[in-house]
Amino acid sequence: MSKPKVLVVGAGGIGMIGAYTLHYNKRCEVSVIVRSDYELARKRGINIDSVAYGKVDNWKPANLAANTTEAMEAFGPFDYIYLATKNIPDGSNKCEDVIRPAVTPGLTTILMVQNGIDIENAMFEAFPANIVLSGVTLSGAQNLHLEVKHVGPEVCTIGFFKHPTIDEKILEAKAKEFIELYSNDLNTITYEPDVRSSRWRKLVYNASINPITALAGLDYSRVELCDGRATVLRPAMDEVVKVALADGYIIPDSHVQAMLEVSSGLFYTPSMLMDVRNNNLTELEIILGNCVKIARRHEVATPVLDTLYALMKMKQFDIKEKNGIIKVDTTINKDYSTYGKGF
Amino acid sequence: MSKPKVLVVGAGGIGMIGAYTLHYNKRCEVSVIVRSDYELARKRGINIDSVAYGKVDNWKPANLAANTTEAMEAFGPFDYIYLATKNIPDGSNKCEDVIRPAVTPGLTTILMVQNGIDIENAMFEAFPANIVLSGVTLSGAQNLHLEVKHVGPEVCTIGFFKHPTIDEKILEAKAKEFIELYSNDLNTITYEPDVRSSRWRKLVYNASINPITALAGLDYSRVELCDGRATVLRPAMDEVVKVALADGYIIPDSHVQAMLEVSSGLFYTPSMLMDVRNNNLTELEIILGNCVKIARRHEVATPVLDTLYALMKMKQFDIKEKNGIIKVDTTINKDYSTYGKGF
Repeated sequence: MSKPKVLVVGAGGIGMIGAYTLHYNKRCEVSVIVRSDYELARKRGINIDSVAYGKVDNWKPANLAANTTEAMEAFGPFDYIYLATKNIPDGSNKCEDVIRPAVTPGLTTILMVQNGIDIENAMFEAFPANIVLSGVTLSGAQNLHLEVKHVGPEVCTIGFFKHPTIDEKILEAKAKEFIELYSNDLNTITYEPDVRSSRWRKLVYNASINPITALAGLDYSRVELCDGRATVLRPAMDEVVKVALADGYIIPDSHVQAMLEVSSGLFYTPSMLMDVRNNNLTELEIILGNCVKIARRHEVATPVLDTLYALMKMKQFDIKEKNGIIKVDTTINKDYSTYGKGF
Repeated sequence: MSKPKVLVVGAGGIGMIGAYTLHYNKRCEVSVIVRSDYELARKRGINIDSVAYGKVDNWKPANLAANTTEAMEAFGPFDYIYLATKNIPDGSNKCEDVIRPAVTPGLTTILMVQNGIDIENAMFEAFPANIVLSGVTLSGAQNLHLEVKHVGPEVCTIGFFKHPTIDEKILEAKAKEFIELYSNDLNTITYEPDVRSSRWRKLVYNASINPITALAGLDYSRVELCDGRATVLRPAMDEVVKVALADGYIIPDSHVQAMLEVSSGLFYTPSMLMDVRNNNLTELEIILGNCVKIARRHEVATPVLDTLYALMKMKQFDIKEKNGIIKVDTTINKDYSTYGKGF
């Protein structure tokens, strides 16, 4: 029997370590999409400096493509897509559109190794006949023009998103099949029977620390120096816990405490702050937007998260305008003399 | 009888229009402090383009000084100080220290034409034997290297801060005496019997729109385009109203509505956003910090204002660090491998 085919989409640190892990395990045929640095990947290969796999220079994936259309033609159809792109539903590049050319209905299982909550809905809508898995990973990896730095050993939980029509037994088997392909002695991959639970737990960190550092323009240590843990991180996390509870998930206080501690003392730049600094769109909607929407549905008051979300929507607007995605007609300024009436 | 002597401190738009107004009225002897552009003021003078006073080129105030010590030596003692500097108690240049050399105990009345609430306390502490007046002004003026643009006619309310020991009759007479010096046909100066009320009313605007535009990095119109009025401006204003109520001041909803409308449609940059963009310290503590402190004292919950305040404290920290006021030792980074434990 031929090996299953896995396509890795999303060439950030997580995607690269995912691709190398599958390559290292030799249990599947790995195809990798490298978009912007495609020529460099083809000619020189990828350099990896990994806490788990050591130094690997000039690694050339056996199957390399510049986009999913080319990948499908040359190496498809795919049993799995390991999806590790950024997930920006309010951007011009929705991840379901990115993978569409490589998805075979009824065959391809999509593993979403992405942040956020309620991310499966857009996937089910785009691909109603496909299985969608959830991967909540922590790997401490980054990729800058094919120089991959992997500083934290990968800890990942994988499970299935409940599908509207496909039986749970089949979904579970598929999740476990992928775990077989992906596990080795150098990572810790566990089956997660309730993926929404793991997503809520990660959201405690992501929905608070990401927007707060992004809005402050400060790394984690500096936020701590400003007493941010007490003044805004903890209040934001407490609201995430309340929303999760209304959604049916109990997050113990020990977990919140652990999330507060996890980056303590690190001059660490969370992804949203990195994005704001680099003038890139952030994963605001799936991380904070969906959390706030769930809160509204359950009528849970979340004034801190609402404030962070409103401000981050403005940052996102600013980034969209700076990238030419939206245009503002600044000539329709009202008469300035009205300013100040009524004080 | 000789004319009363007024020293104008703070050479922004408001201070410059204040100085010119007093000069124009000819009822007092005006001395003006111009610090950074002193040489230019002395040689070329000040250019004013005013909605009220027309175009005035090369205006040279009769009494000009580079700081309060020189002003006191050359032109003091002063009956009044018209204080229009920025008010940044957490900065290195407290306004009471700036005026100290020009304050004569028992003689000099200090008119604080500055934003915020509870600003009189530091003044009473520094000058227990002096009268302190409150001026809440709206003038729509700016000064860029002695090119003064005055776009909105001045509307100002003046009254007295209740003094711990001086009789209210004396305070009231002093406030009205200054109004006599300052009023003319081109401005609207009214006596305010309860200055705390006028400060709360202005704070509805300043404690919400200033930090929100500063954190978003967007002018007022763009904040509106992001639906900011509903998502965060109104919630922030509602909290200011609640705090004012606990402090004994009823702010009608019509005023809140007016504050929401006042800058509508204007690509207008509030001062705090201007400060953040120019990497200058903001008037955070007197505008938002004192409001939040009053809320805590009265046990009023203000989660939106608390969040804005916490984030702005971080922006202020960033500005202090960039200006070398504080130093952060970034070498004491904890072991990065701890990052991610516990997800």
